[in-house]
Amino acid sequence: MSSTWGNKIKISIFGESHGKAIGVVLDGLPAGEPIDFDAVALQMARRAPGRDRSSTPRREADLPTVLSGMLNGKTTGAPLCAIIENTSTKSGDYGNLDIVPRPGHSDYPAFVRYEGYNDVRGGGHFSGRLTAPLVFAGAVCRQILERRGILIGAHVASISTVQDDAFDPVQIPEELIRRLSSVYFPVLRAGAEAEMRQVIEQARLALDSVGGVVECAVIGLPAGIGGPLFGGIEPMLASMLFGIPACKGVEFGAGFGAAQLHGSENNDPYEITEYGEIHTKTNHAGGILGGISTGMPVVFRAAFKPTSSIGREQDSVNLQTGKNTKLNVHGRHDPCIVPRAVPVVEAAAAIALLDMVL
Amino acid sequence: MSSTWGNKIKISIFGESHGKAIGVVLDGLPAGEPIDFDAVALQMARRAPGRDRSSTPRREADLPTVLSGMLNGKTTGAPLCAIIENTSTKSGDYGNLDIVPRPGHSDYPAFVRYEGYNDVRGGGHFSGRLTAPLVFAGAVCRQILERRGILIGAHVASISTVQDDAFDPVQIPEELIRRLSSVYFPVLRAGAEAEMRQVIEQARLALDSVGGVVECAVIGLPAGIGGPLFGGIEPMLASMLFGIPACKGVEFGAGFGAAQLHGSENNDPYEITEYGEIHTKTNHAGGILGGISTGMPVVFRAAFKPTSSIGREQDSVNLQTGKNTKLNVHGRHDPCIVPRAVPVVEAAAAIALLDMVL
Amino acid sequence: MSSTWGNKIKISIFGESHGKAIGVVLDGLPAGEPIDFDAVALQMARRAPGRDRSSTPRREADLPTVLSGMLNGKTTGAPLCAIIENTSTKSGDYGNLDIVPRPGHSDYPAFVRYEGYNDVRGGGHFSGRLTAPLVFAGAVCRQILERRGILIGAHVASISTVQDDAFDPVQIPEELIRRLSSVYFPVLRAGAEAEMRQVIEQARLALDSVGGVVECAVIGLPAGIGGPLFGGIEPMLASMLFGIPACKGVEFGAGFGAAQLHGSENNDPYEITEYGEIHTKTNHAGGILGGISTGMPVVFRAAFKPTSSIGREQDSVNLQTGKNTKLNVHGRHDPCIVPRAVPVVEAAAAIALLDMVL
Amino acid sequence: MSSTWGNKIKISIFGESHGKAIGVVLDGLPAGEPIDFDAVALQMARRAPGRDRSSTPRREADLPTVLSGMLNGKTTGAPLCAIIENTSTKSGDYGNLDIVPRPGHSDYPAFVRYEGYNDVRGGGHFSGRLTAPLVFAGAVCRQILERRGILIGAHVASISTVQDDAFDPVQIPEELIRRLSSVYFPVLRAGAEAEMRQVIEQARLALDSVGGVVECAVIGLPAGIGGPLFGGIEPMLASMLFGIPACKGVEFGAGFGAAQLHGSENNDPYEITEYGEIHTKTNHAGGILGGISTGMPVVFRAAFKPTSSIGREQDSVNLQTGKNTKLNVHGRHDPCIVPRAVPVVEAAAAIALLDMVL
Repeated sequence: MSSTWGNKIKISIFGESHGKAIGVVLDGLPAGEPIDFDAVALQMARRAPGRDRSSTPRREADLPTVLSGMLNGKTTGAPLCAIIENTSTKSGDYGNLDIVPRPGHSDYPAFVRYEGYNDVRGGGHFSGRLTAPLVFAGAVCRQILERRGILIGAHVASISTVQDDAFDPVQIPEELIRRLSSVYFPVLRAGAEAEMRQVIEQARLALDSVGGVVECAVIGLPAGIGGPLFGGIEPMLASMLFGIPACKGVEFGAGFGAAQLHGSENNDPYEITEYGEIHTKTNHAGGILGGISTGMPVVFRAAFKPTSSIGREQDSVNLQTGKNTKLNVHGRHDPCIVPRAVPVVEAAAAIALLDMVL
Repeated sequence: MSSTWGNKIKISIFGESHGKAIGVVLDGLPAGEPIDFDAVALQMARRAPGRDRSSTPRREADLPTVLSGMLNGKTTGAPLCAIIENTSTKSGDYGNLDIVPRPGHSDYPAFVRYEGYNDVRGGGHFSGRLTAPLVFAGAVCRQILERRGILIGAHVASISTVQDDAFDPVQIPEELIRRLSSVYFPVLRAGAEAEMRQVIEQARLALDSVGGVVECAVIGLPAGIGGPLFGGIEPMLASMLFGIPACKGVEFGAGFGAAQLHGSENNDPYEITEYGEIHTKTNHAGGILGGISTGMPVVFRAAFKPTSSIGREQDSVNLQTGKNTKLNVHGRHDPCIVPRAVPVVEAAAAIALLDMVL
Repeated sequence: MSSTWGNKIKISIFGESHGKAIGVVLDGLPAGEPIDFDAVALQMARRAPGRDRSSTPRREADLPTVLSGMLNGKTTGAPLCAIIENTSTKSGDYGNLDIVPRPGHSDYPAFVRYEGYNDVRGGGHFSGRLTAPLVFAGAVCRQILERRGILIGAHVASISTVQDDAFDPVQIPEELIRRLSSVYFPVLRAGAEAEMRQVIEQARLALDSVGGVVECAVIGLPAGIGGPLFGGIEPMLASMLFGIPACKGVEFGAGFGAAQLHGSENNDPYEITEYGEIHTKTNHAGGILGGISTGMPVVFRAAFKPTSSIGREQDSVNLQTGKNTKLNVHGRHDPCIVPRAVPVVEAAAAIALLDMVL
Repeated sequence: MSSTWGNKIKISIFGESHGKAIGVVLDGLPAGEPIDFDAVALQMARRAPGRDRSSTPRREADLPTVLSGMLNGKTTGAPLCAIIENTSTKSGDYGNLDIVPRPGHSDYPAFVRYEGYNDVRGGGHFSGRLTAPLVFAGAVCRQILERRGILIGAHVASISTVQDDAFDPVQIPEELIRRLSSVYFPVLRAGAEAEMRQVIEQARLALDSVGGVVECAVIGLPAGIGGPLFGGIEPMLASMLFGIPACKGVEFGAGFGAAQLHGSENNDPYEITEYGEIHTKTNHAGGILGGISTGMPVVFRAAFKPTSSIGREQDSVNLQTGKNTKLNVHGRHDPCIVPRAVPVVEAAAAIALLDMVL
């Protein structure tokens, strides 16, 4: 089993929540690509917890240190390694997770998988904190993609039952993508953020949590990227997206909704634009046919389950005594990670697409 | 881009719809595994078109010939190659697909990707017919899994708006899985098949098509299989499932529905059974936490868009003249591939899981 | 363990010596590449046994059938599968190899590895016959390389103690490479072939066998191909070359000889040619520094042990009884495979380099 | 091109000679393996330069910091990352290497490959210093192998024309392997070290350098490890060994010498030992037949060219002016890296074999 991914780009993520550091190695990047670290820091900040009451109180500097692969602000073509040191962790909080597994977390299956030798503090290698190096890697990759005219942006499509508007998959303006990909809680519909924050606050007060859906768009991807079967855009993107902790569903274009359409509705008719370009009048395909980009926006959604860490008492078992028991995890918790998952989804898409574009 | 997949098991699928043959190479199988070819033939028959009025009239023998990797009915440990010869294809039907691409098919993006050199006849390497070697490979893998106590079965969860019942993800009897995985149009709810067939027949008469959802369960998978990040069961299964033509969505456990639950609802509480085993009282996780199996049934759904081939006139473009045009594809078509997708989903799951179990 | 190789090009070789067929899948080839099958047949013929008294009497047609990936004489971009049917095999000859392993063959370790389930007839998947699909794959790849100006040719550098001349690694004319890569027993020195054939004939009459060394050159490879550490030309080529049965040594440039040189001798000084190009005055590096091509000819040697099949009585053991025994393998044998290994070495180089060049 | 390697074990090496740090990620290690860091430090010290007059004066602490994958002295099963900070580097020494490439180094081809964006200081990612994380990774892997009864040890087989004795490949005592793998300048023949040091010192005084050969043995590897074609022990080991900078040749067993033997000499006859075990009376195969271990010691040699850094004036070119020029590199240099290559070879073998054994 592997924390390594990729074909032309190899990405290797390492670290545990309460270890010395977490980080990432990116092998296969083209040489000579300037990297804007303010833009990287912006993406890191979008993912970082502790920005507002919706998120967990642990404040992470999360400033990555680049150890290799960069010189004078540009990639060298050698593997790029960046690490983020863990500083303000209090391991005492997690003392007996190896004995009483938390429902919804990896505690129990990881205990079986690693025969009890895994680092359970803060979720160890399974912690959502491991998405920080992923966002870093994605922030590097998206700059390289942007230089080739490919932009990625996502929004919070829903939190619990509160819905944002959906993308118009036929026409997604560059300005919209730029805005979405640079703010903390991106939505399309005015008022959606306030409603969503209210649901999150209610969950927080109830010592509970809520999940949601992130909708992501890629514009500027030329037709002809991807391939059949397991080399298609869908399998490549999905193998990245399902690697994000808490992601339990992925759909492209009309997705599960397409299953309820007729072929005459779902098929996207072609037409020649006034500029002589081929496009489709609708985009139920989400910009992908046969695993290959059509030149239309690539649109997909990723579903995130509600945060497993909640303040309520839950039923569990004691792995030592073999008895049923009650579990209470004290301290403040993060009632909704979905807004912070937006840059993670964008990052995953950036890495997967750069692998296919190069 | 790659029609090759896998880590411990390497699977390589080849062939075009109207070429000499299609087939598969499976490298990494354990040696000495007896393979029951009647069971293989049953799975091939479940996928084969032409069984009833719901499917395409092309009758394929689809009897695979094993070229290597088997001796005296057992695997040798060397790569197993099997081919299926293409016999009754009429290439004339597809004459100008390279000029006027069919909406919903890979014709246009593949034309761009391969600069017009790809084999467009019958969809070429993008044809649904390529799922035949996938089913063969899965039929081999599932026998090896079954010998280790792991069973896989799926049903038609919906066709268009007609819903079947869902699995009870906590308790899925072996008899149910055995029944589902051996019939052509498996459903849980009495009457569901008839309703679904009616919707399919209506679509056929309207020269249209319908999509649907396949729900699949894996039982007997022990806790502790899988791993974090990209090595998890979800990314591994999804990278296979999204390789199936027409698959546009994949979700595990409560999936997109989990995004609307609270953590206190979605978290699956542990308990010790009367037999001293650890299980969860609910199974919103679909048997997977942190990418690792919990020992509960693994449950997931795959959404299939309606068949792109329809009998109605559609808008398209002429790639030679650069003009808009109308496209009419004559001949009978397959109004719904979802029942035939059931064994394909099971096969994909079998291959991905064997890769992780070995 | 895997019969699959590659990054951008994935090659999967299958088949057993006495099974139905052997073959290869090549995934990742560019689309639209015309393939000259006369040139392919020439390479197949160079490898085929039975051409003269030096080789084994089994005459193989070895005409590959392309099942997929080609249309109108050009690659389609889909996986290219070709098979070679096994016709004239007499399995009876190999009856008890699973009981009394032949010295020098894979019989014993394969018996342990596959717990006796492997196909031992004719060496099964370990047979030198598996180099036929490798030569086919290489014959396809070298045509694609040649279109990019890269040519590959090799000669028999030695048979037993008879030496051919060595390449002048600084200057290798295109005409020489074209001649070497199109004949059966290529040598540089007039008279070398006759001397070598004499040694081979002596071995044959003595019911014995001889080994030898193949020296291979690649010209036209531009500077800048390859990479550091495991992505270098040496590791990539070596992982292919050591995959050829009977290959026990590989060296690049001065190779083992470089270990006896001083740095001041071994370092290749640069100079600007009269045409303004950078080259090196000597080429002890074999055209590779830091794993990357320098633009000079790539030169390497592969050592082949003497054929393990000999006509003499040998000591072995009976795996059933656990007793020491004598082994006599009757019938004619191939006293030297080195001339036939030449096109195999060229093919391996072609596949590995195309993977790096694409 | 890739600094990443492996199947079950994924190893990713990063860093440049004069960057912030170098390091390695090891993914796929089994959980619960205790790691003795004194033993690790011993291996690091064996590779470190500056131990005696034979080596380069740069003294590196080279103490690796483990960032992840370890807890309470044992592996957690999560990716193990260790870094070594670069402290005492003087970059000024390497000012114009991007303009006047050093003969024998990667300077010129890397300049072409990375279009001048690579870090040339100290050789950058191509520096021999990158073998430090490789030795670290190997030191971890060899402890896991040793726990399974598999030991690895090597000696300096030759420096320039001075030869050490060779292993008796049939019988290699555990005590010998333990001694060789724990000292700095391991040899088999008394007096060999003194003679070799004299040759090295002569080279140093002449501002020159010498190369050599390392011979390595693996004992305790059971029969049946490995596989056919590209999955064999030879290709797997060679793809690692040729990843070591300056390695230009690899041979297994009798290697290039086997090419001069007759089959009746080279074939290793089997016999049953007095303990009822199957072994071979000779071991020209180096413990590998058909890519699979025979249970006999695995023996191989790796040839290292003389250090490219020498103190003499050399011919080179100025890449900016396009003119021929003279190059003088001042400062002390390392006249022979072969003794320090011994632990690197052992480490490479440990990583490759653990990948195959797991």
